[in-house]
Amino acid sequence: MKTPSSLGELVEALRCLPGVGPKSAQRMAYHLLQRDQQGARRLADALSLALERIRHCEKCNSFAEEAVCALCQSPRRDASLLCVVETPGDLLMMEQAQCFQGLYFVLMGSLSPLDGIGPRDIHLDHLIRRAADGMVREVILATNFTVEGEATAHYVGELLRTKGLKVTRIARGLPVGGELEHVDSGTLAQAVIERREA
Amino acid sequence: MKTPSSLGELVEALRCLPGVGPKSAQRMAYHLLQRDQQGARRLADALSLALERIRHCEKCNSFAEEAVCALCQSPRRDASLLCVVETPGDLLMMEQAQCFQGLYFVLMGSLSPLDGIGPRDIHLDHLIRRAADGMVREVILATNFTVEGEATAHYVGELLRTKGLKVTRIARGLPVGGELEHVDSGTLAQAVIERREA
Repeated sequence: MKTPSSLGELVEALRCLPGVGPKSAQRMAYHLLQRDQQGARRLADALSLALERIRHCEKCNSFAEEAVCALCQSPRRDASLLCVVETPGDLLMMEQAQCFQGLYFVLMGSLSPLDGIGPRDIHLDHLIRRAADGMVREVILATNFTVEGEATAHYVGELLRTKGLKVTRIARGLPVGGELEHVDSGTLAQAVIERREA
Repeated sequence: MKTPSSLGELVEALRCLPGVGPKSAQRMAYHLLQRDQQGARRLADALSLALERIRHCEKCNSFAEEAVCALCQSPRRDASLLCVVETPGDLLMMEQAQCFQGLYFVLMGSLSPLDGIGPRDIHLDHLIRRAADGMVREVILATNFTVEGEATAHYVGELLRTKGLKVTRIARGLPVGGELEHVDSGTLAQAVIERREA
């Protein structure tokens, strides 16, 4: 049986979504056409609108509709602190933790030579210009504690230190409420190595 | 931090996809904007095209771009056999099994009074007209063996029998390669009840 071509194309197109394989894509296409044509129309419009409007903030490099995003424009943020994160999602997590009043720079990725992602791809030129604005005193590296995130933090740290900036890294250790019995040994070892005076 | 509105709308719109919650929707939106704008463009276009082109085949009620789909038009299918399935995906599974040379009718759902899905919603008027074309001799009910699928098969079966049609149901039993030790007891019990001469 031949699938109608526009349906086949929709199934193929849905596979650009992360984590969506052929089976899910088919289920999604059938669902949209059979039960939620309004949702499908809305999704098509939202995709077009976002593609047209979303760009990168000139200061923090995160997604924005304006040249400079609302957060970077806020007079209530501490312009002497710059926190470097990998993704807009990480920025959101930082904001939800309500522990940081400075500004951000979003790399939009992490160094990963095996995937062909080098310094240019994570906007390091842009970061260096941003950090050298004369206001920033301390750069806090909040990339993930994965191999890529650690490599990125190391590379970025070296680079910024040569520019005379204070560079710090968020702490590793046991999670809040964490029990020694249930934490992995790598985390426990780091928590011991990075112990501080009580 | 305020998310740009067109990004927020895209995240919301992605949630119309089955199995996509707020976290996945955000991940998908970021992925599309950051890494696959071409894929996003293609998806928007594919959605619009499918919405515009896809309709229901006048004979089998499955998705089609033509008034009557290619399968229903094929002269090589046996018009005396009509197989009733719940979804276009089920039709595809039947075709892949290469066990059936007749024609299909796709209900586009199953009876589910609790969800407000009644006989009208699964196109039973259409099915009765289709089955009464003078060519169909036997209707094979291939709805799922779920509560809804069984109820649907029972209801549809009763209805078609009153029209003088032969009505059959696909068999339940152990799967091919199935071992008694690993099959659920409900399936085993049915396999015993529906035993046939060896």
